[in-house]
Amino acid sequence: MSKPTPVLPSQSTLRPLGLDEVRITGGYWARRQQTNAEATIWHCLYWLEELGWLANFAKAGSGEPFERAGREFSDSEIYKLAEAMAWEIGRSGSPELEERFVRLTGQIAAAQESDGYLNTQFGHPGQRPRYSELEGGHELYCYGHLIQAGVARLRTRGEDDFTRMVRRVADHVCDVFGPGGIERICGHAEIEVALAELGRATGERRYLEQAKRFIDRHGEHTLADGGFGRVYFQDDVPVREAEVLRGHAVRALYLASGAIDVAVDTGDAELLEAVRRQWDRTIARRTYLTGGMGSQYSDEAFGDDFALPPDRAYSESCAGVAAVMTAWRLLLATGETSYGDMIERIAWNVLAGAVAPDGKSFFYANPLHQRTADQDPVAGELSHRAAGGRRAPWFDVSCCPTNLARTFASFAAYVATADDGGLQIHQYTPAAIATELAGGPVEVAVEADYPDSGAITVRVDRNGAGEWTLGLRVPAWAEGAVLTEPSGERREVAPGAVSLTRDFAAGDEVRLELPVEPRWTGPDPRIDAVRGCVAVEQGPRVLCAESIDLPDGADVADLTVDTGKAPVGDDGVVTVAGHVHMNADGWPYGPDPDPETGREATEVRLIPFHLRATREPASMRVWLPVE
Amino acid sequence: MSKPTPVLPSQSTLRPLGLDEVRITGGYWARRQQTNAEATIWHCLYWLEELGWLANFAKAGSGEPFERAGREFSDSEIYKLAEAMAWEIGRSGSPELEERFVRLTGQIAAAQESDGYLNTQFGHPGQRPRYSELEGGHELYCYGHLIQAGVARLRTRGEDDFTRMVRRVADHVCDVFGPGGIERICGHAEIEVALAELGRATGERRYLEQAKRFIDRHGEHTLADGGFGRVYFQDDVPVREAEVLRGHAVRALYLASGAIDVAVDTGDAELLEAVRRQWDRTIARRTYLTGGMGSQYSDEAFGDDFALPPDRAYSESCAGVAAVMTAWRLLLATGETSYGDMIERIAWNVLAGAVAPDGKSFFYANPLHQRTADQDPVAGELSHRAAGGRRAPWFDVSCCPTNLARTFASFAAYVATADDGGLQIHQYTPAAIATELAGGPVEVAVEADYPDSGAITVRVDRNGAGEWTLGLRVPAWAEGAVLTEPSGERREVAPGAVSLTRDFAAGDEVRLELPVEPRWTGPDPRIDAVRGCVAVEQGPRVLCAESIDLPDGADVADLTVDTGKAPVGDDGVVTVAGHVHMNADGWPYGPDPDPETGREATEVRLIPFHLRATREPASMRVWLPVE
Repeated sequence: MSKPTPVLPSQSTLRPLGLDEVRITGGYWARRQQTNAEATIWHCLYWLEELGWLANFAKAGSGEPFERAGREFSDSEIYKLAEAMAWEIGRSGSPELEERFVRLTGQIAAAQESDGYLNTQFGHPGQRPRYSELEGGHELYCYGHLIQAGVARLRTRGEDDFTRMVRRVADHVCDVFGPGGIERICGHAEIEVALAELGRATGERRYLEQAKRFIDRHGEHTLADGGFGRVYFQDDVPVREAEVLRGHAVRALYLASGAIDVAVDTGDAELLEAVRRQWDRTIARRTYLTGGMGSQYSDEAFGDDFALPPDRAYSESCAGVAAVMTAWRLLLATGETSYGDMIERIAWNVLAGAVAPDGKSFFYANPLHQRTADQDPVAGELSHRAAGGRRAPWFDVSCCPTNLARTFASFAAYVATADDGGLQIHQYTPAAIATELAGGPVEVAVEADYPDSGAITVRVDRNGAGEWTLGLRVPAWAEGAVLTEPSGERREVAPGAVSLTRDFAAGDEVRLELPVEPRWTGPDPRIDAVRGCVAVEQGPRVLCAESIDLPDGADVADLTVDTGKAPVGDDGVVTVAGHVHMNADGWPYGPDPDPETGREATEVRLIPFHLRATREPASMRVWLPVE
Repeated sequence: MSKPTPVLPSQSTLRPLGLDEVRITGGYWARRQQTNAEATIWHCLYWLEELGWLANFAKAGSGEPFERAGREFSDSEIYKLAEAMAWEIGRSGSPELEERFVRLTGQIAAAQESDGYLNTQFGHPGQRPRYSELEGGHELYCYGHLIQAGVARLRTRGEDDFTRMVRRVADHVCDVFGPGGIERICGHAEIEVALAELGRATGERRYLEQAKRFIDRHGEHTLADGGFGRVYFQDDVPVREAEVLRGHAVRALYLASGAIDVAVDTGDAELLEAVRRQWDRTIARRTYLTGGMGSQYSDEAFGDDFALPPDRAYSESCAGVAAVMTAWRLLLATGETSYGDMIERIAWNVLAGAVAPDGKSFFYANPLHQRTADQDPVAGELSHRAAGGRRAPWFDVSCCPTNLARTFASFAAYVATADDGGLQIHQYTPAAIATELAGGPVEVAVEADYPDSGAITVRVDRNGAGEWTLGLRVPAWAEGAVLTEPSGERREVAPGAVSLTRDFAAGDEVRLELPVEPRWTGPDPRIDAVRGCVAVEQGPRVLCAESIDLPDGADVADLTVDTGKAPVGDDGVVTVAGHVHMNADGWPYGPDPDPETGREATEVRLIPFHLRATREPASMRVWLPVE
């Protein structure tokens, strides 16, 4: 049983810690993990049973023809839920969840065939043959999520019937897709990152080698060109030749994550550098203020450079999960704090808002501008994945709920790392960290009311390691941050990494004060869609205006703000000064189109973007037109 | 044989003229009609044969199982081409086209069944049953286009085997979808407008009544809710209750056109008013500067109010065709010149640019901003319908080429109308008009080099009608237009309609001078996507910048313009003053995101939008950021 954490590179600049070494002890993320365990996981299970997606396995195992429920990738939802359960069991030890996990994985096993093959959509009576439609069939994609569940189980409870089943699947993939076999790829990347991690978890090098083969085959045009072009599944150019992330956003980010794993474990510096280069350009030109990625609804894809419409932002929740996967791998590989900045941004502004406070409804798409005050979806009904401005209990394509669940269950893994010299804290939340450094054991407690407050206290509760270095991430936005050393000495620290090296005494406190006053943020002039607008950010959180906070009858479409005055943060409430405008309708272009018929000064209350759509129906926008 | 024109309401404010009464004698539209006849129609025929979409009919007629080529609506492409051929035969009398028309319609007839049913996708061995999937099956949609072809033939050549076949189809529809039959609608409107017109062309009232039934059934939820919601096929609310055009743009506009026909012919003022109201709001809030409609790629649909991104503008060519259909019907019903304005805008800025100068490649989507300098598609290959910034010879979904062909062939019908008091000219092109007014025959010639020049001369060549009124449309953009009466008297005329009543003498000339200097045009402040930008228009044409006209290495993304100086139009070349800017990459949001590293003053040459992408690959934009 290796360390209980999702990503364990064979070599890296920073070493991940396990869920047994980092516990989130309070604040937003503790509540989120609690809700995830008590509500979200069971909610997902309900829907997977209700819709028959889980029952497909028993039916497929029967050998009889059956009417299959769900889309071609529905098996993967059960696997992602199993992964979420495995991490949650590792985190909390819940016996109730353990019982259900064993039963669920037994239900999955019913469909496995003697040679390891496992999929409810292909190869059974009346179905198309195995691997007959790699472009859209998702067989290897589903395996990938099954394997990630297997890795989670291996690292939290060790080998059992489920992990043995998973290894039979992985062996089958290596047999069938290895040299001389089907030398092609799956239309949805995921098998790469999964096989690489299973290789790490089992010590079995053939899994890594097979992952490398799949990475290398991208761009060889082994898939048929579809309606969206080969770029859709990153089969347009080889991974190491691409300049930017492109095509379907989740596919692109899963593939990038797998490519990093392969690059790191095979010592392929060129491949690692290629992915870093793609990431950098993606961040500079194809990423929303929220950290969201993917601007195109039609193919759930990255758009062109600087094509970042806030209203038709797709910014899929799963792309947020996938971007955290990629950024975390780059952080471990390089140690650079910018990756931690991006994880924080995505966590607060994509992941946190993609699920309702009660954990039972979800956003699939996360646009930064909602023009209509939509009603909640009908309870108990499936929603179209990109429909409307309210969270829905489940979707026709329901990849996001289970993806969020597995991420929240393992979220403690992203809080801190270690290296030979000490400990690095990347995400600020109340937490208890206990690990073994080179010199011996250390225990550290993080206390914070972050990000409502910018004051973060790191207290060393035990130091059996002698002299070591505590590293703290100072976010790029935190100009003017102040560090207080255990001695009481205060000094301003620049964005990036700040570190303190000493032989800490138990009780030593290091205090980091990050400026969390609300601040104006403008866009690059090349982002056409938000020209002439500003946003307000507060700490790591993006804020937004909702129409229900405007004067009666006004809509966010009618709003302008006065950037001559600073945003005011007062007792947790942020406001900016502005006006609402009345305009007449007519042909909306001309020397003086649709002239204003009135205006009214107003104070605009802003709320965190992740709390949007949690009150009455409202229109909403992040980017506010400047007067 | 009734008047050879596409739309002949039983009652209207203005009466349409036939292709035998109006001939386009020169200028852009004459060249376009020539190219349509000599190149586009044959190009379409080539592809329909090459891809097997035409051969489906013979195979379906064989009674044997067959592998069908094309998408579920491919039959309709043959029908739209037949309609284009029928109008072109009516216009030019080409014997070569007549021979091919007879052969083509004979090939279609091979698939008609004894009860009138005709579709190659349903009801044959191995296929799904007839009318088993009204949501997406397109059977009635295909009939609609077949019927429109039948109407064109009836009105240009009279009854023949083809028109008798078409009537058997229409009778079958009335039998099967009438009261007590399948009381549902088709997922793609078109049958309504077609049946109403066939009722006019044949004098058979049951067709109109069936059209009315289909109109009335929209909003009754007789279709299953699909992934895009019932709004996609306008089955969300009844036509007379809707506030705006919404859902799939082509469906919405075909339906609106049919609703006007039914309203006019049944004297249903409420229904007519409902469609006018929807049109007005659509024009004010959901229409691009080009007159293009539909902003969403994912469902080819209207977006929310003011959601009009230029880069992801869908603005489907077929939606342009359909919007001309709707506007023309409203013009005939009301006589208001604003509908003529919109037809002119769409004709120049959507239709004219949707086809290459040689008539052999097409745009399906017509965005106002192209960020990448794409290469031409591979010759002889199908293109994805919304792919790239270059025209393609044919598409996977290839509704636009044949739709454009039928519109160009019948374009003369939109030039002028008559009423009891005289003649109205709506579109300015060299033309010869000969018709019978209340008092007798008149012949009028229009001479113009429009819109390169704004001078339009209308010469009365014959007047056997005594005193009558000549009405001329003064476009809304034409502030400062000057009219010169036959007497030589000049006066400024306001946008709208200008009319002259007199007993014209042969040789009398009326001259209208429209100001066609290039002009700045701004957007309604509620159109977020182009805030801080201006466009340049010249006469009815929208202009654009292409990167190949910028200094070496500069892209349209780097451009700003100086609106302090007027655009200069000099000998046919329009330029504006501006700068190109260099920006560094980085996180693109912040107090000073990605600061400028340099700038260079430049004169920016602009070209008509409809001529975009006819030179070397280039990025392109209509909306230019203001300095």
